[in-house]
Amino acid sequence: MIGDVDEDHRPGAEPPLADLLAAHLHGSLSDPALEGMNLLNELVSRFPEAVSFAAGRPFEEFYDLEDLHRHVRTFCAHLETELGQTPAQVVRTIFQYGRTKGFIHDLIARNLAVDEDISADPDAIVVTVGCQEAMYLVLRALRADERDVLLAVSPMYVGITGAARLVDMPVLGVSGGAHGVDLADLQATIDRARADGRRPRALYLVPDFSNPSGLSLPAATRHRLLELAEREDLLLLEDNPYGLFSLSDERLPTLKSLDTRRRVVYLGSFAKSCFPGARVGFVVADQLVWDGKSERGGYLADQLSKIKSMLTVNTPPFAQAAVGGRLLESGFSLSAANAAEKAVYRRNLRHLLDGLARRFPPGSGVSWNTPGGGFFVVLTVPFTVNDDLLERCARDHGVLWVPMHHFYDGRSGMNQLRLSCSSLNTEDIDRGLDRLSAFIADSGDRFR
Amino acid sequence: MIGDVDEDHRPGAEPPLADLLAAHLHGSLSDPALEGMNLLNELVSRFPEAVSFAAGRPFEEFYDLEDLHRHVRTFCAHLETELGQTPAQVVRTIFQYGRTKGFIHDLIARNLAVDEDISADPDAIVVTVGCQEAMYLVLRALRADERDVLLAVSPMYVGITGAARLVDMPVLGVSGGAHGVDLADLQATIDRARADGRRPRALYLVPDFSNPSGLSLPAATRHRLLELAEREDLLLLEDNPYGLFSLSDERLPTLKSLDTRRRVVYLGSFAKSCFPGARVGFVVADQLVWDGKSERGGYLADQLSKIKSMLTVNTPPFAQAAVGGRLLESGFSLSAANAAEKAVYRRNLRHLLDGLARRFPPGSGVSWNTPGGGFFVVLTVPFTVNDDLLERCARDHGVLWVPMHHFYDGRSGMNQLRLSCSSLNTEDIDRGLDRLSAFIADSGDRFR
Repeated sequence: MIGDVDEDHRPGAEPPLADLLAAHLHGSLSDPALEGMNLLNELVSRFPEAVSFAAGRPFEEFYDLEDLHRHVRTFCAHLETELGQTPAQVVRTIFQYGRTKGFIHDLIARNLAVDEDISADPDAIVVTVGCQEAMYLVLRALRADERDVLLAVSPMYVGITGAARLVDMPVLGVSGGAHGVDLADLQATIDRARADGRRPRALYLVPDFSNPSGLSLPAATRHRLLELAEREDLLLLEDNPYGLFSLSDERLPTLKSLDTRRRVVYLGSFAKSCFPGARVGFVVADQLVWDGKSERGGYLADQLSKIKSMLTVNTPPFAQAAVGGRLLESGFSLSAANAAEKAVYRRNLRHLLDGLARRFPPGSGVSWNTPGGGFFVVLTVPFTVNDDLLERCARDHGVLWVPMHHFYDGRSGMNQLRLSCSSLNTEDIDRGLDRLSAFIADSGDRFR
Repeated sequence: MIGDVDEDHRPGAEPPLADLLAAHLHGSLSDPALEGMNLLNELVSRFPEAVSFAAGRPFEEFYDLEDLHRHVRTFCAHLETELGQTPAQVVRTIFQYGRTKGFIHDLIARNLAVDEDISADPDAIVVTVGCQEAMYLVLRALRADERDVLLAVSPMYVGITGAARLVDMPVLGVSGGAHGVDLADLQATIDRARADGRRPRALYLVPDFSNPSGLSLPAATRHRLLELAEREDLLLLEDNPYGLFSLSDERLPTLKSLDTRRRVVYLGSFAKSCFPGARVGFVVADQLVWDGKSERGGYLADQLSKIKSMLTVNTPPFAQAAVGGRLLESGFSLSAANAAEKAVYRRNLRHLLDGLARRFPPGSGVSWNTPGGGFFVVLTVPFTVNDDLLERCARDHGVLWVPMHHFYDGRSGMNQLRLSCSSLNTEDIDRGLDRLSAFIADSGDRFR
């Protein structure tokens, strides 16, 4: 149908080749949120020698291929000795199709009890292909028709924006303010949405060391948020990939551990606490779903499982086995198992913050926040930051970062950039900060 | 908001717990297609002692845990010796976030050249979390608005129905007829859909040993289907999980190998040719997408990759490494590597067909088709087959199968059932057929 397109090597009277118009594909594909991330990935691969403060990747120097093999063996031994599976049953567990909700749900529940003080029924857990699939499953379930909207603390992780685009669910930003969520703005956004005939179904947030803001909710804010959610009949989608990596030894309670009324859907990731290569995440969804028939509804997890059966069937057993083995070997404490990683992340974050302070004294026009942990720092600079400037910085100065405007719906964050130091060593951080400093001096001159 | 629901252990003045109404969740969740599959899974677990002709699972007696470890080592050695990766880069490939389209695309392209005579540009391949994710990605891309519909040869695999439901894309059934697809009905369905203001975007089919019908398209039908697709500007979604498992040594060409005009999107699975536990599939999508700007569009695969980045980020490297290792060890021929499996599937299918002939002589009122290969046989019986009858059969006779009506949109297939013999041995097949025979005699009496 698209005669516009023709092939160099098939000129003349040949009919047009089978091709497609971008305008006839789903709207998510031309969405700025997805385009932006592709641009960033492209820059990273075009400038491999640049110091990258861009990616929120975990530190990789502790990874060892033999660990992977051992984790799988540990898990298989567990199936035999603890669960009483015969060798043939173990082979079936690892090689065949399996339970849609996954088979390491009980191990995850034990981990949540030990590390997060969360008491989760294993049957309310769905093991997913990374936390990204968990986000998709929840939004797909909640988006019943065009009235349904998602709220998300802004600036927001692009993964949630993307998942929402795939199910055609509008996202309304809620200000993060100084404490991770501005409750007055949340209330006003809910009220406005309802007045417009919309149904705010849930609020997505990262309460601990948020990506990208680095902010954490104070304890009092957590309690008030849960009260507001209860009052306004809102679910809270709590995403917690960085909770283990606090600068201090003190941790604040997760929303889910404070949740007495099943208001919180907990989104979990093993990408940072185990390894991204497993692509294993999970969701705790213990909300009861009432179908108007049965006396007591089933778990929301069982509804998510139905969606998963039509999306990925089940999370790869090979990958579940690797994560399961690591959970078993750690005695169910990934906090303990990550002692070395935690030390690296603390060292790096302090090194980054100290390095910024040395290079940008008060009055320099450059400022930043001081997160209590996690992977990210937000830098504010005295000029406009966009993708063209990032490209120039990569080319001329050999350093990469992420313009903050990608994490906002509108035109906010235009003089901010996100720095991540999680996968670097201190020498890289120093070199990167020197380059960043030269770039900022250069750009400041230009814009002055 | 749902005061209807209350908790036994929280009576009185307590506010209602956070719960959800099924009616406020996405429509796919109350769809009969998804409900039906859940029921079947439930029956399988309720009657573990039953002989199951229900599941289309691969034969599992050749699986060996040590193979999994060796495959991963083979793949890692390949990264070092063939691709020149340093040990640190190998670790990064296996443990970190990676390329959204996957990293075994070149190995898959070599496999397609050897086994299927398909010449695929590796950059047009997206490695997916099983073939199910590939289906979702394609349908999500093609469903731009409410006018877009999918055509599918009926009876149809429930996985495609489910993926279509997740993107709210109606599925119009096209008769399979005697040759795998009724081209006149296909033309009529396209015409009717267009007259109704709809856009038929693609036809989904399994040209070789289809699930559930067992039918294959003759060579001439393949050519005529490609011509029709070209004339009507229709994509063909060719799903080929069973192609290797022919009863004879002759194989018909895949649609993709005959496709000179990029009309075919090829959906690939390693679930049967390697192992389901990897959950690795792929899609070849070399269609050019024209965005109205660039001189020549990019591949549809790159659009699918954007969707995947918001769905599962990338296919688990651990699982890709296992499949990659098996491809390397097989010299890129899964047809050769599956010699033992092919022999088992042929033996089983012949044993099932012979066993049916012995038990149901002409005039018995029971008939069946004779597939040229694959996992499935369709049995026609002289009474109505529904889920209640299946449950009775499982309980009273200890044998499981799938009512064919689950594979139709309407009320067709009501006196048919699908038998699969892929994961059984011949003793199980004999025992299962004896039980099935008793059940049919019983049911025939009842309905007479």
